[in-house]
Amino acid sequence: MAQKPSIPKGTRDFNPEQVAKRNYIFNTIRSAFETFGFQPIETPSFENSETLMGKYGDEGDRLIFKILNSGDYLSKADATAYTEKDSTKLTSSISEKALRYDLTVPFARYVVQHQNEIEFPFKRYQIQPVWRADRPQKGRFREFYQCDADVVGSDSLWQEVEFIQLYDAVFSALKLEGVTIKINNRKILSGIAEVIGASDKLIDFTVALDKLDKIGEEKVKEEMLSKGISEAGITKLQPLFTLSGSFESQIESLKGILSTSEEGKKGIEELAFINEAISVLGLSTAALSLDVTLARGLNYYTGAIFEVAAPKTVQMGSIGGGGRYDDLTGIFGLNNVSGVGISFGLDRIYLVLEELNLFPETVLKNIEVLFINFGNKEALFCLKAIKQLRLQGINAELYPDAAKMKKQMNHANKRNIPFVVLVGEEEINSETYSLKNMITGEQLKVDLNALIDQIKK
Amino acid sequence: MAQKPSIPKGTRDFNPEQVAKRNYIFNTIRSAFETFGFQPIETPSFENSETLMGKYGDEGDRLIFKILNSGDYLSKADATAYTEKDSTKLTSSISEKALRYDLTVPFARYVVQHQNEIEFPFKRYQIQPVWRADRPQKGRFREFYQCDADVVGSDSLWQEVEFIQLYDAVFSALKLEGVTIKINNRKILSGIAEVIGASDKLIDFTVALDKLDKIGEEKVKEEMLSKGISEAGITKLQPLFTLSGSFESQIESLKGILSTSEEGKKGIEELAFINEAISVLGLSTAALSLDVTLARGLNYYTGAIFEVAAPKTVQMGSIGGGGRYDDLTGIFGLNNVSGVGISFGLDRIYLVLEELNLFPETVLKNIEVLFINFGNKEALFCLKAIKQLRLQGINAELYPDAAKMKKQMNHANKRNIPFVVLVGEEEINSETYSLKNMITGEQLKVDLNALIDQIKK
Repeated sequence: MAQKPSIPKGTRDFNPEQVAKRNYIFNTIRSAFETFGFQPIETPSFENSETLMGKYGDEGDRLIFKILNSGDYLSKADATAYTEKDSTKLTSSISEKALRYDLTVPFARYVVQHQNEIEFPFKRYQIQPVWRADRPQKGRFREFYQCDADVVGSDSLWQEVEFIQLYDAVFSALKLEGVTIKINNRKILSGIAEVIGASDKLIDFTVALDKLDKIGEEKVKEEMLSKGISEAGITKLQPLFTLSGSFESQIESLKGILSTSEEGKKGIEELAFINEAISVLGLSTAALSLDVTLARGLNYYTGAIFEVAAPKTVQMGSIGGGGRYDDLTGIFGLNNVSGVGISFGLDRIYLVLEELNLFPETVLKNIEVLFINFGNKEALFCLKAIKQLRLQGINAELYPDAAKMKKQMNHANKRNIPFVVLVGEEEINSETYSLKNMITGEQLKVDLNALIDQIKK
Repeated sequence: MAQKPSIPKGTRDFNPEQVAKRNYIFNTIRSAFETFGFQPIETPSFENSETLMGKYGDEGDRLIFKILNSGDYLSKADATAYTEKDSTKLTSSISEKALRYDLTVPFARYVVQHQNEIEFPFKRYQIQPVWRADRPQKGRFREFYQCDADVVGSDSLWQEVEFIQLYDAVFSALKLEGVTIKINNRKILSGIAEVIGASDKLIDFTVALDKLDKIGEEKVKEEMLSKGISEAGITKLQPLFTLSGSFESQIESLKGILSTSEEGKKGIEELAFINEAISVLGLSTAALSLDVTLARGLNYYTGAIFEVAAPKTVQMGSIGGGGRYDDLTGIFGLNNVSGVGISFGLDRIYLVLEELNLFPETVLKNIEVLFINFGNKEALFCLKAIKQLRLQGINAELYPDAAKMKKQMNHANKRNIPFVVLVGEEEINSETYSLKNMITGEQLKVDLNALIDQIKK
């Protein structure tokens, strides 16, 4: 019974070229993570529902994919919810497991569960897929990879310095020059809210401020007013709207604005420390920039906040982000473990590299040489040579069938295989190989050693 | 609110050492796949339920993890099933997606869906996790990786020859010597069933025969009798029970047994062809062995059947398997596409390598050098050196906090970091580094170049 095959919306098949390009990014990130001393862990694709539920807010709870219990799952269904046909209420009684929504909560769970085996400070990285039942749209998928590096167990600001260098190292290795690493600090935002008398409206205030780039100063002020922030407070904010210039000069302006807030001053101190260290150490291709409107995931971060913007020539949202969170593992009962981490946005980085044509040609680990199949006797002779080529690290194969030569040559062309070897009676007798360069058309008759040399060139 | 964290049964966390060891196996397999001309694809973790359901038998259907629809899923629940509280009947109306159960059915779906973009014969490999709601037990998990290589679009027996060499290449690269690649052919089994007049009882017959090693000749005969295979038929089987000796001599015996079966003779011919080719080409460390009792996944395979046994010194089930299937994509409406493939059992290979102590020490990509942190001034000096070391490919890090020296040295010991660098006032002034070898205890004062040289040694 034939079915027209398809895949669920928001998911993707990856063909060999796409896998190779994705692996190029993964490997570059992984290599930098390891150079910086991060160690890999992996956690299960699904967690117990209670591990995930309630950690991402109501919206997050809705977007978590739940797995139906096996067997006669209705036998344990909540009777009231079943009678009322209440989907939300019924879920927890028919589903105990859910697909990972991010890598951070599973990491927190991992740290708490394995705390006695872990040597702190613990620098871990994790590159695994996550799943969200979001409405799919351009660049947003229901299954996508996250690439996270975090340190837990140290509140040293050197970690922030290291993460900025790590971003720079990865994007430099990817030859993606001109990215901007934006930094802010939760304490700056708290300080400003305090100064304008809106400490209780920190979220509303930062959500509005975050839109400055998109909707402009007037609209931001309107939104703040509508959220109950006073005219007087907004007036005090004025210097913030026009904050510009170097990292250092912005720091100076902030000192003026935040002179009455202890928390604000602490934030300034942290930013200045990080900036000074980076000035001494230098960045290869990225730039560090202070952005006081940056507020991503504010509920979560307690210190530094990072976001990476693609080079200005490319239209693309952030390609990375992160920050410091002071009590991540507290939700699982382990308190006072400070953490800081960053994440790389694989899909967006892919799109940027594609747009700027930055994938190296060598990414595709294609077959280097195809042996044409003229029949069983020739094929066996070829396979002996192929075995030697492979031992030399050359990707080689035999066309499986003794099909028409034209068909086999077309196959080599369609797969962009650079060399073809032809072996007939004459070559077998003289133990030679006719090697054809598919790009230049040049043809040589060579022995096995010369064959290896020619292909390796 | 503290929770005691845990993970779902049958799933696993992997710590850095385990991830590194698993990646060593994955990378070895991947590298061999590419050398042999296989190209990677990836498919989504979940598929539409109709893609998976009904493809693995009733038992398989039960073991597939189903994903609950998002939102108010009960609004579309099948009314009758809901009233009857019939879990099995209700499922398809509240769950449209399911987690991948293996890599073969998604591959078949991929080939049919993308048939116009694929250049056949198509050699693909796929290394991804699969999920089964099996009862967890030692060595059996609910989430585990499969590593598959398949060719579709060619019925050439050279593929079988290639797959045997591929198994040999992978296990040789893993230094796992002494594996046995067992081979059989569905046509041999069909031929035998035909000869003993039990063609309609092929499954019963092969299931019984498959147990020969475990339960012995008499019990196998009893089981066959109980399944309705005649005494006369079983008598004709006698030579099969005592089949032994070389591949060639077993082939000769089979020729006698199967002289009246066209299909049987075809199977013999195929086996002989493969064996002759492998005799010429040779295997590095594996042995090829004919096993007429081998019947795994018989419903599925139409030609060659493979299974790999670990070295005899290790108690372990099969560590790989595969075979030829002539109409895999037919279930999705694309007929006459022959396929053949093999799979590697990651978890069991891991256990075997562990037991035989075959993981190279270099697998763990640990930090090579830890810089002790004596304070901010020293730390900054250290980070400048660390940056240079990393550019040289050396995994290096700074201890993040200016903690007591003993604590920092303990940290280096616990993480098995081979070198530690100490930088104080004196080193800063003379631009030198005190390098301590943590294994020998030896300590040297060196400049940056010598530091790099020493660590690279």
